[in-house]
Amino acid sequence: MSGNSFGLLYCVTSFGESHGPAYGGVVDGCPPGLVLSAADLQAELDRRKPGSSRHVTQRRESDAVEILSGVFEGRTTGTPIGFLIRNEDARSKDYAAVADKFRPGHADYTYLQKYGVRDARGGGRASARETVVRVAAGAIAKKWLKEKYGTRVRGYLAELGSVKIPFESWDEVERNPFFAASREVGKLEAAMDALRSSGDSCGARVNVVASGVPVGWGEPVYGRLDSDIAAAMMGINAVKGVEIGAGFASIGQKGSEHGDEMTPQGFLSNNNGGVLGGISTGQDLTVSIALKPTSSIRLARRTIDRQGRAASIETTGRHDPCVGIRATPIAEAMLACVLIDHALRHRAQCGDVAPPVPIGRKP
Amino acid sequence: MSGNSFGLLYCVTSFGESHGPAYGGVVDGCPPGLVLSAADLQAELDRRKPGSSRHVTQRRESDAVEILSGVFEGRTTGTPIGFLIRNEDARSKDYAAVADKFRPGHADYTYLQKYGVRDARGGGRASARETVVRVAAGAIAKKWLKEKYGTRVRGYLAELGSVKIPFESWDEVERNPFFAASREVGKLEAAMDALRSSGDSCGARVNVVASGVPVGWGEPVYGRLDSDIAAAMMGINAVKGVEIGAGFASIGQKGSEHGDEMTPQGFLSNNNGGVLGGISTGQDLTVSIALKPTSSIRLARRTIDRQGRAASIETTGRHDPCVGIRATPIAEAMLACVLIDHALRHRAQCGDVAPPVPIGRKP
Amino acid sequence: MSGNSFGLLYCVTSFGESHGPAYGGVVDGCPPGLVLSAADLQAELDRRKPGSSRHVTQRRESDAVEILSGVFEGRTTGTPIGFLIRNEDARSKDYAAVADKFRPGHADYTYLQKYGVRDARGGGRASARETVVRVAAGAIAKKWLKEKYGTRVRGYLAELGSVKIPFESWDEVERNPFFAASREVGKLEAAMDALRSSGDSCGARVNVVASGVPVGWGEPVYGRLDSDIAAAMMGINAVKGVEIGAGFASIGQKGSEHGDEMTPQGFLSNNNGGVLGGISTGQDLTVSIALKPTSSIRLARRTIDRQGRAASIETTGRHDPCVGIRATPIAEAMLACVLIDHALRHRAQCGDVAPPVPIGRKP
Amino acid sequence: MSGNSFGLLYCVTSFGESHGPAYGGVVDGCPPGLVLSAADLQAELDRRKPGSSRHVTQRRESDAVEILSGVFEGRTTGTPIGFLIRNEDARSKDYAAVADKFRPGHADYTYLQKYGVRDARGGGRASARETVVRVAAGAIAKKWLKEKYGTRVRGYLAELGSVKIPFESWDEVERNPFFAASREVGKLEAAMDALRSSGDSCGARVNVVASGVPVGWGEPVYGRLDSDIAAAMMGINAVKGVEIGAGFASIGQKGSEHGDEMTPQGFLSNNNGGVLGGISTGQDLTVSIALKPTSSIRLARRTIDRQGRAASIETTGRHDPCVGIRATPIAEAMLACVLIDHALRHRAQCGDVAPPVPIGRKP
Repeated sequence: MSGNSFGLLYCVTSFGESHGPAYGGVVDGCPPGLVLSAADLQAELDRRKPGSSRHVTQRRESDAVEILSGVFEGRTTGTPIGFLIRNEDARSKDYAAVADKFRPGHADYTYLQKYGVRDARGGGRASARETVVRVAAGAIAKKWLKEKYGTRVRGYLAELGSVKIPFESWDEVERNPFFAASREVGKLEAAMDALRSSGDSCGARVNVVASGVPVGWGEPVYGRLDSDIAAAMMGINAVKGVEIGAGFASIGQKGSEHGDEMTPQGFLSNNNGGVLGGISTGQDLTVSIALKPTSSIRLARRTIDRQGRAASIETTGRHDPCVGIRATPIAEAMLACVLIDHALRHRAQCGDVAPPVPIGRKP
Repeated sequence: MSGNSFGLLYCVTSFGESHGPAYGGVVDGCPPGLVLSAADLQAELDRRKPGSSRHVTQRRESDAVEILSGVFEGRTTGTPIGFLIRNEDARSKDYAAVADKFRPGHADYTYLQKYGVRDARGGGRASARETVVRVAAGAIAKKWLKEKYGTRVRGYLAELGSVKIPFESWDEVERNPFFAASREVGKLEAAMDALRSSGDSCGARVNVVASGVPVGWGEPVYGRLDSDIAAAMMGINAVKGVEIGAGFASIGQKGSEHGDEMTPQGFLSNNNGGVLGGISTGQDLTVSIALKPTSSIRLARRTIDRQGRAASIETTGRHDPCVGIRATPIAEAMLACVLIDHALRHRAQCGDVAPPVPIGRKP
Repeated sequence: MSGNSFGLLYCVTSFGESHGPAYGGVVDGCPPGLVLSAADLQAELDRRKPGSSRHVTQRRESDAVEILSGVFEGRTTGTPIGFLIRNEDARSKDYAAVADKFRPGHADYTYLQKYGVRDARGGGRASARETVVRVAAGAIAKKWLKEKYGTRVRGYLAELGSVKIPFESWDEVERNPFFAASREVGKLEAAMDALRSSGDSCGARVNVVASGVPVGWGEPVYGRLDSDIAAAMMGINAVKGVEIGAGFASIGQKGSEHGDEMTPQGFLSNNNGGVLGGISTGQDLTVSIALKPTSSIRLARRTIDRQGRAASIETTGRHDPCVGIRATPIAEAMLACVLIDHALRHRAQCGDVAPPVPIGRKP
Repeated sequence: MSGNSFGLLYCVTSFGESHGPAYGGVVDGCPPGLVLSAADLQAELDRRKPGSSRHVTQRRESDAVEILSGVFEGRTTGTPIGFLIRNEDARSKDYAAVADKFRPGHADYTYLQKYGVRDARGGGRASARETVVRVAAGAIAKKWLKEKYGTRVRGYLAELGSVKIPFESWDEVERNPFFAASREVGKLEAAMDALRSSGDSCGARVNVVASGVPVGWGEPVYGRLDSDIAAAMMGINAVKGVEIGAGFASIGQKGSEHGDEMTPQGFLSNNNGGVLGGISTGQDLTVSIALKPTSSIRLARRTIDRQGRAASIETTGRHDPCVGIRATPIAEAMLACVLIDHALRHRAQCGDVAPPVPIGRKP
């Protein structure tokens, strides 16, 4: 298995470049019998679509997805689900300036050094546009998880640069143009406007939560659920940090504070974030990720060219000043893909096991 | 590939329980011709060995490793390297009290619910003692990386509970009983003594750095170097957070601050932590992890028993009050295993590519 | 890795059904820098194309392939190569008769029993039309192998039902409408005509040979070269047997006859078929496969329907009376994919090893 | 996953050399709750043990197996099962003669050329003694399959060199010193005696049958059941050919003869060998393999030495004159391992599917 597939049993394979003909993916291992149509994938793709507000890239893409296989008479057949998303608005001329120089903080440099060649148009394979594949694959995973186990995977923007956004309600997320779980909009728009006029970019924090995860998913000691979640999250473009449960705050906690006590009604807290020993506890799975600021900015920066000579670079083109905004559906998708994979892996090995300990689900 | 193997080409498989006959592992895919003996593994195992100071578990284990295959006349042959570490000091009676109840924050509960059975002695498979396998596998990886590429993988304790420990020098790490890169000992001992007398435990932060990593390792978009590092780190017992480079601090950074500028002499900063687009940049790889406090503590805690009834638990037995202390060699080992795997993967696909851009190595 | 991908480093993923919108595939792990265009794939696809003679299915498909990613300015970039082949002549009505009954010898029954649903149109996922993906992936492998190592992968039809076809010359294969390495055509046409008028079908033997394979490819003891070849060949539709080298004739051989003697000029014979201990010897790799007769025949046969009731079935529609004829390019493709995968795997682990023993290449 | 592991969910990893300290293996992914002890493994190991009759190698090995993990209070726990078999009778001096020369038909040459080094003692990693690991892993698989599904995996020697041995009864196999399903002994002993006195060796055919396999196992199109069986069988030392069902006889069959007709009571024949479209049919799985003659023979043969110079070689030492005799339990083990792997894979993806078509099991 080379680098563009992930998942052992729910296996997602991705291809495509920013300015090539299309992105596409293959989901292999989906259980048969799931009611599925392109509309299920489209709904999630529309959530991450560019151009949805003035705070994200103005590239115009319908991101219309076509299912090419694996679905017959409205149901999955158990065979691989191939899907395709054509690129439409690929203005290669915008990128002529960056073809010969490397954007600080961007993968331009490493791709060229690794492969000896690179498709510089729009970041090529390194473009965050690749995440359409993840979102489409995640949409299928989400649907199956919800129908089979009642599992829901939801995320929200928790920090926009230095602005911390309190969680108010899940209901706000789909209404809020920033995926914030808050009625707050003005302060965020002001922050974005200031950013755009300065020609700079900022980072973000996104939180993702899966509720309704049964106890027992995850394969210690290396195929742990938390380990696979960490890989999935750190593999999203621009992510530089991943926390589960109390995360880095665990360092300053005492054991008597961190260790979640149990009662017949369930756990009394959730510092573990829904996973102990690499196995889900039945509590909410809580994950938090840090996204770095967009590396394509208007401000001039020092760099080098392909010959290794000193140069300066300013990136115009159409870029999200904060890639973290559109990261919410992507992070949800990745978590959903990890969960379905482990649901299937657990059923394979432990399909005969009924969890012996009766316990409630609290909180 | 089930849950107890990791690595695509340098593949580590682990087995063993805390109070079973032995731990062991298989390293498959090691290049042939490497000079190797049990002493190379032993040196690293001794670094993480219990009983080395009064601040870690007093379980007495020689952790003597035996190489069973894959080495002939002092050199690796390219065939799998099997190794074995017998358990010696397995006092099962210490654990009778925990066999029927679940320690808050421990994997006791999830293992039982997942598998329907569990070896409760000493935490069974969930014991941190399993990390001997990782350390042994990492020792081989470290040696090859150093000989072939001059790559060095080193770590240190950066925070002990609420005590932040400034980095002074790599030279201090091996002298310091806490793996701190500092001459500081007294303050750390005082913190540990207070912790022990209170019957509680604390968390820790460990930083790991790989220097001398060539540009080009890592396979975007899912087999990224940072993605695999995140999985390896989050897969270490007690880890709840992983950062690469600026990590969570990236959230508050501007793009003009975060994006590492380049000159013909090299990068001017290292916020990316040595990886861009999932591929190594040639800079130092910098990773930081958060470890939660030990879940086995003397203080009484609310829990349930196997029948789901309310209960109270106090853990006596021999436990590290801060598992983070001995995590340094483990984290180094995991990073080394990821690096050799990607070194081999890169050579496989891009063995013909000479990185085209000439650039220095600064900083 | 689920069931529709194969190869560890040169990883091929396939999707598509006979009467769905399209077939497609993803080749991940191809080395960068290879000169490649759709024409390279098309040339091989045209060799297996239906309708090329009156002895194969008359389904009209242009099998035009579109490369969607992984190639930039005429060279592979090291990123995944996605490709698509639209279905054109999908006359679903032809298959109404078989939707509710199971053809003896066909996968109709097993797909339905496994998945609970099936796309019965044209055999759905079980159609041999899926091999377009293999042939396309193999075309890339063939090209790289030839340029990098001078390796050539060629096959021919050795038996058509009970007609044995002597090997005359490789030059004849591309001229012969049956992929026979012979000037013989009339006898084969007569056999096919008799078969067609009888409404029956027949089996075939195809031999495949790879020349110019370096010594050292293959990973014992489970990732052996012969083991992977056997899997690849048995995985082709209708294949029921695989031999390497002397194959089943080895049973009756003495060790003094079978064991290929060596001289400074090379091996004196090739009973091993180019592989010893799972590792290539540097000789020609010789593989032979048995293909069963097509299961879709005009003659009436006893079967059951979806309710398990006794029924009778006659298959009209457009089917190859001997699937073995078009299997030659498919078998070549599978062998090429296995070889490039092992070429990369060998380079990964043993990239530093120069084979120490000087030896010629004879025969 | 490197070359010494196989199986996706029931994953077997092997290590060890003929004259090293030990062989060992790790079985990862075994379902929890299976009653298991070393005696279960030992029973199968004793079947393939050397020295059991005068017709096999006289190397004296008790092949005593120790289980090191994964079993607690007599049941599997779902964690990896590590096991160890110490080498006892490793007389390295016997092999001094072959250390510098290559046995025709043996892996001596390819191992050295691949890895640059080799452990020549007793064939090192290439020794058929490695199959102890397969047999031990297969014993666990067999037990689970039988308890869970009533599946039985049995094999027998069908041809010894040119002697064809008719199948009489499964009951004879365990009584017959050659694993023949026949009361015949004298003719086989005579053949072996003649062989031994001539200093030569011969090939063999072994048939393996799995009965009680449910319909639906196997993952088309690359993870097919027959594909994985072919890999497993061709991966056994000395195997040069694999057939499923009618195998090579399919070539000469007509479709009307080969395609197994169905009735409400079941299939009327079994040319497919229990697999259609890569998925089990519910019939007996029938596999046949060809084993080449032992390459270590007393007769002098032409070869070369490590410097590539012409030489002559005669192998004394203790070798099976027909490796096929002891291959029966090995082939059974490999088939069992493939079957349990696919049982788990099927349960993962299709755990909700009840095969919709009612059908008997005939024959």
